[in-house]
Amino acid sequence: MAGFNVRSVLVTGANRGIGLELVKQFLGKSNPPKWVFATCRDPEGMQAQELQNLASRHPNLGIVALEVTDPANVKTAAARVEKHLKGSGLNLLINNAGILRLTTLETETLEDMSLVYATNVIGPLLVSQVFLHLLKKAAQQSTQTGLSCSKAAIVNISSEGGSISKLFAWQLGQVISYRCSKAALNMLTKCQSLGYGGDGILSVAVHPGWVQTDMGSPQAPLTGEASAQGILNVFPTLTEKDNGGFVSWEGKDLPW
Amino acid sequence: MAGFNVRSVLVTGANRGIGLELVKQFLGKSNPPKWVFATCRDPEGMQAQELQNLASRHPNLGIVALEVTDPANVKTAAARVEKHLKGSGLNLLINNAGILRLTTLETETLEDMSLVYATNVIGPLLVSQVFLHLLKKAAQQSTQTGLSCSKAAIVNISSEGGSISKLFAWQLGQVISYRCSKAALNMLTKCQSLGYGGDGILSVAVHPGWVQTDMGSPQAPLTGEASAQGILNVFPTLTEKDNGGFVSWEGKDLPW
Ligand SMILES: NC(=O)c1ccc[n+]([C@@H]2O[C@H](COP(=O)([O-])OP(=O)(O)OC[C@H]3O[C@@H](n4cnc5c(N)ncnc54)[C@H](OP(=O)(O)O)[C@@H]3O)[C@@H](O)[C@H]2O)c1
Ligand SMILES: NC(=O)c1ccc[n+]([C@@H]2O[C@H](COP(=O)([O-])OP(=O)(O)OC[C@H]3O[C@@H](n4cnc5c(N)ncnc54)[C@H](OP(=O)(O)O)[C@@H]3O)[C@@H](O)[C@H]2O)c1
Repeated sequence: MAGFNVRSVLVTGANRGIGLELVKQFLGKSNPPKWVFATCRDPEGMQAQELQNLASRHPNLGIVALEVTDPANVKTAAARVEKHLKGSGLNLLINNAGILRLTTLETETLEDMSLVYATNVIGPLLVSQVFLHLLKKAAQQSTQTGLSCSKAAIVNISSEGGSISKLFAWQLGQVISYRCSKAALNMLTKCQSLGYGGDGILSVAVHPGWVQTDMGSPQAPLTGEASAQGILNVFPTLTEKDNGGFVSWEGKDLPW
Repeated sequence: MAGFNVRSVLVTGANRGIGLELVKQFLGKSNPPKWVFATCRDPEGMQAQELQNLASRHPNLGIVALEVTDPANVKTAAARVEKHLKGSGLNLLINNAGILRLTTLETETLEDMSLVYATNVIGPLLVSQVFLHLLKKAAQQSTQTGLSCSKAAIVNISSEGGSISKLFAWQLGQVISYRCSKAALNMLTKCQSLGYGGDGILSVAVHPGWVQTDMGSPQAPLTGEASAQGILNVFPTLTEKDNGGFVSWEGKDLPW
């Protein structure tokens, strides 16, 4: 853990909720990354106030505009990050941005299904595609053997609600579009693990717990801080054997 | 098997491939259904020639226009089927229509991801929604206890390629959009099993094998006929224990 050293990390959907907490935890480490890229849809807007405050105290924090469902915007974001990195690769890409619609089998619509899928699955795919060359570069620049989060990794923030065998919290919400999207995101993670493992990139799906955020509601048992701390504790433990896996914020393996 | 009696069945994407073969197998049974609804996008077009020929020989075959990604069209189709059924319910809904794009992690696009998801996941959701009252009616009209395909069932034609743990045929094709869609369809099936089981409706995901169709290519080991025969042999074996499950055309349980 002491030796766990990520030089650069990027978090999508970082202006609030779990994404913001992850950014705070990275900045607060005793050995913080040289570059923390916090992306959000509107860096200048009110919604990014907390990030702006953080940036004024942390010169290693860069705020980058990124709407994950817009291919052109995603490319622009990658170009900006590449410029900042000045020849260095990106170690850790955290696809965290996501949405949930409170729907049931009866009320689910084409529109909600499409939007949730675009945000929760197509977004992570597009973002991973455009940052791939920076992840590969980080892997090449690393002297570490095997796969790890400090070398080069894609972490997709998934959900136990997307576990087909467990169907976590069905009684609390059917949220069909959300569950289908997270099952698909788990599949994407598995595909990325096979496609990118040979390039030295680890791909992993992480369930952050049920967390007190706008999405998770105040009812949730975990604070954002506890979830993000848990996730940061899990990162150093992830190795080759976790490539294409699905783990919780406590480091437990979850079933598909 | 002898006692397996489906009074009414509907198959989407029935103008070619596995859907057409399923229709042929149902019509060729010694005790054929009273109503076989074969749906396709353009019943009058050249693409529906084989169905039209079949309909001229089988008065129990009805051809219904159905584009699964169009909510209004899906509703119109359900109204037409309801009129034909004259107060009877629909026993078996087979969501078979599907598409595949030959993509990789690198070449996958927003457009392909969206279209494949709309067809392979949102389609089955919308079709199940509008036919639900007819499936419920069939369950209520049945004297059978437990769940079965002859009472009331939703069969979603999935794929072993959508098994996250197996990732069937990765070497032959990454087909990310397709794999993600089928993993999501498996999740939808599980959700439907929980949502509709109490109404007497069985929900099951079926892998038809790798089949010689336009999608499966001539390389595939199975003929459409063998796949459809296998699936029809599996139907009578499906019970309560298979609700929300994932089975192959040979009746084998598959992992998520
Ligand atoms: N909270 C939980 O209990 C829980 C449980 C399991 C999994 N998760 C997962 O954890 C992740 C974070 O959730 P959260 O609880 O922190 O949610 P949240 O508080 O609702 O925050 C969601 C974040 O995603 C961003 N976002 C949404 N759509 C976006 C888009 N199209 N492009 C860019 N950014 C977008 C939001 O930005 P805006 O401010 O611009 O909307 C916001 O920053 C999600 O993937 C979620 O599915 C959460
Ligand atoms: N073949 C295999 O090896 C294999 C393996 C595993 C799973 N499957 C699954 O089996 C199912 C049938 O596949 P297949 O091999 O028979 O494929 P296919 O020969 O390509 O036929 C696909 C059928 O789906 C219809 N369809 C496509 N998009 C539609 C839409 N938006 N609305 C309505 N109908 C639509 C097509 O109609 P048009 O003629 O109008 O295009 C056609 O009837 C699919 O769900 C597929 O994923 C196939």
